[in-house]
Amino acid sequence: MSAYPPAVQELIDEFGRLPGIGPKSAQRIALYLVNAPLQDATRLARSIDNTKARIGFCTRCHNMAEDELCSICSDPRRDPSVICVVEEARDLIAVERTGEFHGLYHVLGGVISPIEGIGPDQLHVRDLVVRLSDERVTELIVCTNPNIEGETTALYLARLLADTGIRITRLASGLPVGGDLEYADELTLGRAIEARRRLDAPGT
Amino acid sequence: MSAYPPAVQELIDEFGRLPGIGPKSAQRIALYLVNAPLQDATRLARSIDNTKARIGFCTRCHNMAEDELCSICSDPRRDPSVICVVEEARDLIAVERTGEFHGLYHVLGGVISPIEGIGPDQLHVRDLVVRLSDERVTELIVCTNPNIEGETTALYLARLLADTGIRITRLASGLPVGGDLEYADELTLGRAIEARRRLDAPGT
Repeated sequence: MSAYPPAVQELIDEFGRLPGIGPKSAQRIALYLVNAPLQDATRLARSIDNTKARIGFCTRCHNMAEDELCSICSDPRRDPSVICVVEEARDLIAVERTGEFHGLYHVLGGVISPIEGIGPDQLHVRDLVVRLSDERVTELIVCTNPNIEGETTALYLARLLADTGIRITRLASGLPVGGDLEYADELTLGRAIEARRRLDAPGT
Repeated sequence: MSAYPPAVQELIDEFGRLPGIGPKSAQRIALYLVNAPLQDATRLARSIDNTKARIGFCTRCHNMAEDELCSICSDPRRDPSVICVVEEARDLIAVERTGEFHGLYHVLGGVISPIEGIGPDQLHVRDLVVRLSDERVTELIVCTNPNIEGETTALYLARLLADTGIRITRLASGLPVGGDLEYADELTLGRAIEARRRLDAPGT
């Protein structure tokens, strides 16, 4: 028997279902909410309802969107000739934060992972192919994660789109800026050496 | 400018206010809910509302309660002659889980902490004194945490109630069961030596 009142136990269970929240954290949050002012707890509940009511997915790129198109797809200042392919919306946010990319996106909704039974048909790959034939795209930057699934997905897309004439690029792998050579793993350091760049003295 | 739609940014901010959830976790949870089925997200929101609507505090011991009295105070099988004083409801749950305690509780709602400006008046100390004069209590087990604030609070209560004739006890400090002597801190090991128990051979 749980020592918690049923409503509290239920709340603990609900929080425990969220990603990255273990049983102890779920307990802590639930008890925090029991003690919190009513308006604080209500604001959280309303915010969840509001998000589910207002946020859908962009029909063009599958980013989060309040309307049919997301704020990026509907922005006329973005360059439609370059598309950045990402796994999830959170990766899109990460690229946006760099301020270095001014094109459009395409959210795959995951990566190819035979172990989890996810192939191209479970991802938004077909939509991407349609977009590439409809829109005047010259470059596709594949921004999947630099791990096995991400690389597999990137290679799959490169092969699939080889005949389209679109330039397909991949994010550079190498040492993180501000990182420490000593602590870099061999794979990363190996990639950094392989993809070394010529350093020209300024003014030459 | 945030790259998230306003409703999502608001949800991230709300989750970020919960204890133990940093900005990255808040983002992860919010994006999880955006992608989750509507019914899952709604169940979480309803559970928060339900908890706030149904759960209050026991008028006798300040534990969480669905009615005027909590499930422990209203259980006639509990022994009303022993009261266990805890800081928060979560400590009460921890004691309940041991199955070793069959008396009643009193939740202080915190500990004495001069640095944070919390004195006995900010805690449910006065209620405790009233309870002790009204109810036939013979023992008060002070289960505050074994840290400076917890010890201070325990000593304060011991002094305050010295003349009542009630037996005031404190949880034993010592090595955790299954713990490792080598890794015990000096304070804990010191306490364990100080409070050593006589070991009688069985049958003598």
